[in-house]
Amino acid sequence: MNLPQGFRAAGVACGIKSDPTKLDLALFVSDRPATSAGVFTQNQVVGAPVKVCRERVGRTSTRAVVMNSGCSNACTGERGIKDALWMTAEVGSQLDCVPQDVLVCSTGVIGHFLPTDKIAAGIPRAVAALQHTSEGFLDAAKAIMTTDTVPKQAHRTVSVGGKTVTISGASKGAAMIAPNMATMLAVVMTDAALSLVDAQAILKAAVDKSFNCISVDQHQSTSDTVLLLANGAAGATVHAQSRSAFQAALDDVCQDLSTKIIRDAEGASHFVTIDVTGCRNDAEAHLIAKTVADSPLVKTAITGNDPNWGRIVSAAGYSGVRFAEEDCSLSINGLEVYRAGAPTSYDAAAISAAMKTGEVHLHLTFTHGSASARFWTCDLTAEYVRLNADYTT
Amino acid sequence: MNLPQGFRAAGVACGIKSDPTKLDLALFVSDRPATSAGVFTQNQVVGAPVKVCRERVGRTSTRAVVMNSGCSNACTGERGIKDALWMTAEVGSQLDCVPQDVLVCSTGVIGHFLPTDKIAAGIPRAVAALQHTSEGFLDAAKAIMTTDTVPKQAHRTVSVGGKTVTISGASKGAAMIAPNMATMLAVVMTDAALSLVDAQAILKAAVDKSFNCISVDQHQSTSDTVLLLANGAAGATVHAQSRSAFQAALDDVCQDLSTKIIRDAEGASHFVTIDVTGCRNDAEAHLIAKTVADSPLVKTAITGNDPNWGRIVSAAGYSGVRFAEEDCSLSINGLEVYRAGAPTSYDAAAISAAMKTGEVHLHLTFTHGSASARFWTCDLTAEYVRLNADYTT
Repeated sequence: MNLPQGFRAAGVACGIKSDPTKLDLALFVSDRPATSAGVFTQNQVVGAPVKVCRERVGRTSTRAVVMNSGCSNACTGERGIKDALWMTAEVGSQLDCVPQDVLVCSTGVIGHFLPTDKIAAGIPRAVAALQHTSEGFLDAAKAIMTTDTVPKQAHRTVSVGGKTVTISGASKGAAMIAPNMATMLAVVMTDAALSLVDAQAILKAAVDKSFNCISVDQHQSTSDTVLLLANGAAGATVHAQSRSAFQAALDDVCQDLSTKIIRDAEGASHFVTIDVTGCRNDAEAHLIAKTVADSPLVKTAITGNDPNWGRIVSAAGYSGVRFAEEDCSLSINGLEVYRAGAPTSYDAAAISAAMKTGEVHLHLTFTHGSASARFWTCDLTAEYVRLNADYTT
Repeated sequence: MNLPQGFRAAGVACGIKSDPTKLDLALFVSDRPATSAGVFTQNQVVGAPVKVCRERVGRTSTRAVVMNSGCSNACTGERGIKDALWMTAEVGSQLDCVPQDVLVCSTGVIGHFLPTDKIAAGIPRAVAALQHTSEGFLDAAKAIMTTDTVPKQAHRTVSVGGKTVTISGASKGAAMIAPNMATMLAVVMTDAALSLVDAQAILKAAVDKSFNCISVDQHQSTSDTVLLLANGAAGATVHAQSRSAFQAALDDVCQDLSTKIIRDAEGASHFVTIDVTGCRNDAEAHLIAKTVADSPLVKTAITGNDPNWGRIVSAAGYSGVRFAEEDCSLSINGLEVYRAGAPTSYDAAAISAAMKTGEVHLHLTFTHGSASARFWTCDLTAEYVRLNADYTT
């Protein structure tokens, strides 16, 4: 998969992970100053890199993002901040830019300090390995994996002002084997030019319909970060005319990256799409979808290919959204099981067979309005429990 | 375990459950009119019996509670309401009281209609079996079990106005093997006399510190119900002087019943007590405790006897309560692992060994005030997943 013009990437192994052959340090570099935007975890407890990034996005001179896996540098106090700042200074000195132009993300176990000696040795090697090739991009995507089983990349082109611009991104996450903490990281690059205000607004809108619409286990991480870098190397600027096309392409990239996270969720055996329609407003639709997605009873019913719709309807019922039972209907994989507050006479075996494909579609409809939400989740398996319980400190 | 004076109970098998030898119809009767109070699920989707009970608690002429397991009579529309009303009328005609003096609870699979023919045959047999003995009480406690492995009863005596009064209760719940839906039911009886206003207030206060402080899997059921019946047969009325002693005894009974639900939670291997102290107000303390209790990553760490404190602190961080990392410290089974926002140098092996006892105590302290909350939960095991996934409709 290609990088946009003017971007290079690399991934190297520097020994942060216990297996010394595994890539664990990624570098994404724009050869020219790029406009940056970021969306971060809402957790009150955040990793040191998030604190640093929050201060540094929204500049027009961003040059690089350095990311490591194997250690999240979260809950590490003052020393953690110092280490994150040091990491950006090391990269800056190699790229001949100020530390403020370098962003940093870390993912992995919480509460451990970064192995700065290993990272100090790794950074020059990562800089030396930078390439504008699909290999460089793939190595970088691999270097941010924790318990992910596949690297996650996405790519779209879109016409802006008569020129073709490219949007490419990489993400990791939704894999939480101990000793790692669930963390989701993504970096999205484009060779279109974007104003600072547009970059943040367009990224926020895309994240609201993608990364904010997925859940594996409702545990919001301390490190969730999505970064956008726009360097204008394609010679085209996103303006009013091309904005909706660019937004749609960025939405696609973000949905592609976020659903890849769900498809690779730890131990999962089903990919679940939840549509909630006919609501008073988007927030209510989203809240219902998320509540259904987070219910362990809904998840385990799906694990067992069981159209146990009472669990789905009752989860909607405790979402906090006000409704009467008659307002609600439910279909599973296109077959209606509950209509206006009462059960239909559905073919349970047929629905169960459809669920066995591993693709499950839940559609809750209400009679309140025209707002809707789409949400993606996975099931809850014994393998998830095993992976997250078997580690002992 | 004894019933309070003037109460009789029975449990019979009438074939609602697939195993015809299993008790599935319970009856609790006060020989004299009792004051009743109730606390119910906040789910927007509620079982028909909850709708009936909500209208009928808060009377001084309550005579009986009829409960069945094997079918929750929830999501059953108009016919469900009719069936629940019919059930109370059948009991009323046997006890020579009006249907309004009979309360009804049902637990089991959602979306199925009650087998009224079987219940019609069972009610006279239950009435004939009514006893003021510990056997009658035990049979009734058994008849409300679904996937519970043990019946749950609690009993306290307390002095009111120089007389000894008794509080006895039975509960079921937190067992969610398909095809059953998680439902928690409890009935608490006392031979003290209580005013209507006092009965509701005292019950609400006790439930807030007991049943509202437990969670197995955060899935709020359509049928959660706690009922209190006070018949005054001991010849003592709870007044201002004795109120705090009675409240404390009722709190004890409710905490005893609710923690028994957690100890019998499906597939659970650890009993977890979460204390949150030093908060601005009780609501914030409760929210933090509940968020930690509901995190699958915290639960699976406990399953693996893993003092993976980053999961606990980060769950507090996404609870919605505002705090700075320095405000927070954490102990696991008495050993401090996180102090004022930074890790301590703790003995992980010692904590893990303590967790292996099956009793885990998490204590989160904040520097905001003096409010606190205590919450009980269990771990998340592969056995929980197996039990809830293996059923196929």
